Parts: sequence; C-alpha cells; structure tokens
Amino acid sequence: MPIPDLKTLKEIYQSLQSYTRKTPMIPSEELGARVQGKVFVKAESLQKTGAFKFRGALYRLLKLTKHEKSRGVIAYSSGNFARGLAAAGEILGIDVHLVMPADAPKNKIESARAHGADVKLCYQSEPSREEAAAAEAVRLSRQHDYSLLHPFDDATLIQGQSAVAMEASEQLEQMGETCHFLLCPTGGGSLAAGSSMVFNTVNYPDTQVLAIEPSGYEGMTLSIEEGQRARADGKLFSSCDALQALSPGEKNLSIIQNSKVAGLAVDEEFVHEGIRFAASKLKLILEPSGAIGLGALLQHSEKFRGKTTVIIASGGNIDIEKYAMIIHR
Amino acid sequence: MPIPDLKTLKEIYQSLQSYTRKTPMIPSEELGARVQGKVFVKAESLQKTGAFKFRGALYRLLKLTKHEKSRGVIAYSSGNFARGLAAAGEILGIDVHLVMPADAPKNKIESARAHGADVKLCYQSEPSREEAAAAEAVRLSRQHDYSLLHPFDDATLIQGQSAVAMEASEQLEQMGETCHFLLCPTGGGSLAAGSSMVFNTVNYPDTQVLAIEPSGYEGMTLSIEEGQRARADGKLFSSCDALQALSPGEKNLSIIQNSKVAGLAVDEEFVHEGIRFAASKLKLILEPSGAIGLGALLQHSEKFRGKTTVIIASGGNIDIEKYAMIIHR
Repeated sequence: MPIPDLKTLKEIYQSLQSYTRKTPMIPSEELGARVQGKVFVKAESLQKTGAFKFRGALYRLLKLTKHEKSRGVIAYSSGNFARGLAAAGEILGIDVHLVMPADAPKNKIESARAHGADVKLCYQSEPSREEAAAAEAVRLSRQHDYSLLHPFDDATLIQGQSAVAMEASEQLEQMGETCHFLLCPTGGGSLAAGSSMVFNTVNYPDTQVLAIEPSGYEGMTLSIEEGQRARADGKLFSSCDALQALSPGEKNLSIIQNSKVAGLAVDEEFVHEGIRFAASKLKLILEPSGAIGLGALLQHSEKFRGKTTVIIASGGNIDIEKYAMIIHR
Repeated sequence: MPIPDLKTLKEIYQSLQSYTRKTPMIPSEELGARVQGKVFVKAESLQKTGAFKFRGALYRLLKLTKHEKSRGVIAYSSGNFARGLAAAGEILGIDVHLVMPADAPKNKIESARAHGADVKLCYQSEPSREEAAAAEAVRLSRQHDYSLLHPFDDATLIQGQSAVAMEASEQLEQMGETCHFLLCPTGGGSLAAGSSMVFNTVNYPDTQVLAIEPSGYEGMTLSIEEGQRARADGKLFSSCDALQALSPGEKNLSIIQNSKVAGLAVDEEFVHEGIRFAASKLKLILEPSGAIGLGALLQHSEKFRGKTTVIIASGGNIDIEKYAMIIHR
C-alpha cells in the first residue's frame, strides 16, 4: 500500500481541523526527571468523544460516496470507535449502526446512543468478543445494505488516524523539540500505522513509533517479530477494553512493516499506575487503554533514559465507579 | 488604581508565555444543550502546578527588584498560590518561604515542598485559617527580611492573573465566538479582577465577569452589593479550600467596582456535581474550587439560557482519596 506523501498527510489533517479539537501536548516534569529526559503527553483523551478514534471515523465518513452516505454505515466496536463514529455520523447526517460487545463500558454504549447511533449488543465472546461482534456486523450489513466499516483495518481510516501524529509533529516543531519515541496505544494498530506514516515522512528521522499493547494481547508485537500476522492468546486479564484485538489489521501491519515500529507490552499493574499518575500529576482522567503509554514509561523506564518521549494518551472513557476504585486502591 | 491598557495587558501575557502553558478552551456540547446556548471550559487545571495562581506568582516574582530577589520571599497560602509560587521561585532561582494552614490538602503542601519551598504549617484557625497564617507570615518576613507577598491583594499579582483572560480572549477571537459570561472561581478576587481588566479592554463589550463563590463565603458578592468591603460569615461547610477568604482584597474590589462584575454563590452539592460532570464528560480532574464554575452553571442554568458562557476551571489539586469518594458517592 503506498504511503501518502507529506502534502497529502497535511491535507488530511487540515480537512478534519474544523471538526476536531487540537489536543494539548503537556510536558511532564515528573516523568522527565524519572527518565532523565523529556516527556510530553499528547492528551488525546480531550478529543471530542474522548479518544482519537473520532478523527479516523470522521475521515472515513467524509470519504464515502454520496450513495453510501445515504444508505448508512455499520461497524462493530468495543467502544471508542463506536463513540467516535456515532458522533461523526451525527455531525455529517449519516445513519450509524453499531454492534458492540455487551460487556463494553456502559459510558461508551450510552454515549454512542446519545449521539443517535442504533446500537445492538452482542452477547457472544467466542472466538473473541471482537470477532463475534464483527461477524454480527457483517450479517447485518448484508441484510440491510449498509456500508460495513472496519474499526481499524481500513486504509482510509488509518489515514484519518494519522491526523493525531501530524498535529503532534506540528506541536513539537513549534516547541523546537525533538522526538525519539512516540508511544501509541495499540489494539488493531490504526493509530500506530497512521503515526508511522507521519513520522516516516515529516522531518523527524530519529523518531521510533512504539506500538504499546497490554500483556497477553501483543498481536502487533508478535507480528512485527515474526514478519507476518500473528495472534496473541488473550488469556491474561486486561482492563484495556479498547486494546483487546488478538491480531493486528492486515493493512495496519503492512504499513508498520515498512517503517521501524517496534512493539512493547505493559502489565496490568503498570496500566493502573499510569491511571493514577495521570490523575494526581496530569489532572487527566484516562481509561486503562489511554494510560497504557504512561504505564510503558513507568514499567520500562530504562528504555527511555535520556531521550525525548511523546506519549499519546487516548482515551478517557471509563465508567466512573470503576475509575474511583482504581485510583483509590 | 489605573487599569492597564490593552497593549500593556498583551505585553504582560506575552512576558509569561515562555513559562506558562496555553490551556485548552474545551467546548461542552452537553452543557450547551442544557442551557440552549454555548459553553466553553477553559481548562486552567492543566496549567503548570494545576492552577492559574502560577501565572500571577511568576509575574510577581519577575517584577521584584534584584535586591528583593536575592533576599527571598514569604507568603501565606491555603495551597494553590503556594504551589504556584514555589514552582515560579524554582524556575527563577528565588528562595520561597511559605506559611500554609495545617489542614491544607496534602498534595498542595507536598508539591510546594517538592518545588523546593520552605513550608511552615500553621495550626491556628482563629479568626480564620487564612488570617492566622497571614499573621505568621508577617512575623517571619520582619524577622528574616523576606519580601512579603500577598496571595491575592496585590496590583502586580492581579496583572499577572489577567493572563488567563487574555489567553481566553485570544482563543475566543480565533474561534469567532462571542462571550456573554466569564465565570471566575473567587476567593480574594485576583482572577476576577484580572479578568475584568481584560474584558473591559478587549473587544468584548458584552461580557459580564461573574465572581463565583462558595455559599457562606460570598465576601466579594456582598462587597459588590454593599459598595464596600464586606465580610462573609464563613459558617457553612465548603470543600472549596482555595476559596475561603472571608473578604475580597482591597485592590481586587477596587478594580472590580470599576467594571460590571457580579457575584454568584454555589452550594456545596453543586460543586460536587461539577466535579462529577468534569470527570465523566470533560475527562478533567478538578478540585472543588476548580469545579465551582461548572457548579454555578448546573445550579443556576436559567441565568445562562441562550448565552455563550466561558467557565474558568482552576485548579486540579485534590487529594486523590478524597476525589475518589466524591466521584463514587
């Protein structure tokens, strides 16, 4: 798959700017001191709908044909893509149908409905909750002639997700900062793929994009290592409900194989440490999947010693009772 | 006291920009729908040290004479000014001594110390915790020849605090938005005074600055109504530890009397509602004093119907166990 050039990537970002929020790049002196380097947190949790998924969903819908727009779309999602797609559909006047796992966080289900989406819950969890919901979405798309959108394995969607990294690169440039590592929370890999396109193209040749995955769900890490799509076993418990894809998307992996992306796994306890750090030091509410980049820095501090690291923190959609329990421990 | 002109206010803001963070202006569609208008939240909780106080403290220190800088400064503060002053002193290499009430939030005391300040705790609470700490700061300044800084009743400090509103006005202009109400959390009144200077001067003639106070601590509201400094009785319980001054500063009131600022009180239960709203919808951690503007909108929705309202949300410094209890209820 050809990688868009810089001009195209900038145009993609600009085409979304009137809908999306520019999220802040927050320096963390505490984390910087911990690794004797510099650390910035790109607070994408403050994006509309609380996650980067809104950017890609919006771009995907903008690229539908007129006929496809009139028919409406269907997708399966564990939550943040659902929420982002619902909001994007509401803005653009396109009907959105969703299949979500019944155990998705309540706030994600309710928010998708609040944005006018038609949400069906899927109670199956075999072979995995994602794959069961995906099969149901395929069935419904055929039955009703909706456009079937994949939550991550989609070239146009990946291009839309590149907007996060384009915005970050512009912010880094304005601050006169370098970037050695860019940490992307990774499920199917659309953020990591979109980010690698940007950082391969813009003037940051020393940046390595890291795909950060929950331990037990390192489908991307395994795939990069083996040079082909591999599957994690998904047997460990993880609270990162947005990052439980067992294999990366095909298109995502193909883009990532053309760059120097590496994978890194984070244990559950460090994800929770990341949530608490964000609460007490950054004043940001992060869901587990949004805090995994902070968790990576806390668990693997040595790796980041003396370097400049940018952590994408997305998203912020967590049921508040669960959140209270995590920060209170 | 003469009000600085627009050029001077812009220069003040610009002189601080290399030290301070530009905090985001976050639109809240939910709140907008609730008042059938538009609502923006200026997330000053994301400022360095978690509150707007950092801006004023920094400006105050920059304006010290060389001799004063070498002697060091002393101030009393219930917390956010202490934290801001400690960080500003650390950046500028000026010794900072602080007297804080012993019941100030632990995170505020610890953070001031982490920034290298010398913190003495004051255990008295008569006539009020602020006044007891103030008397102790005066005593120490005489004994050691430190410059005594007032946490709010100081013309230079107020000018520094105007930077928040200057930044907000620039963001509003860029977005092409009007502003009918600007809500400022108010204790001694430095934010409200600084903001009223800006909004009297920039091209927003229809903006009314509202000084938002906790019920029972409406010193500013009473003073505006009576046309002279008045004193609240402080007998109700309030979790807004940063807003418990019983009377506004003299200089603050004098600036405010020259504009059309009005006061508005918020009950404790709505402060907590504001905290929960910020957590679940905005993904922001706010301390009670930082959520009081949201509380004002939730308690007095009618007042804001059909209008465009900007809420300054500052700060975010709350002990995390207390926070967990509030959001969990």
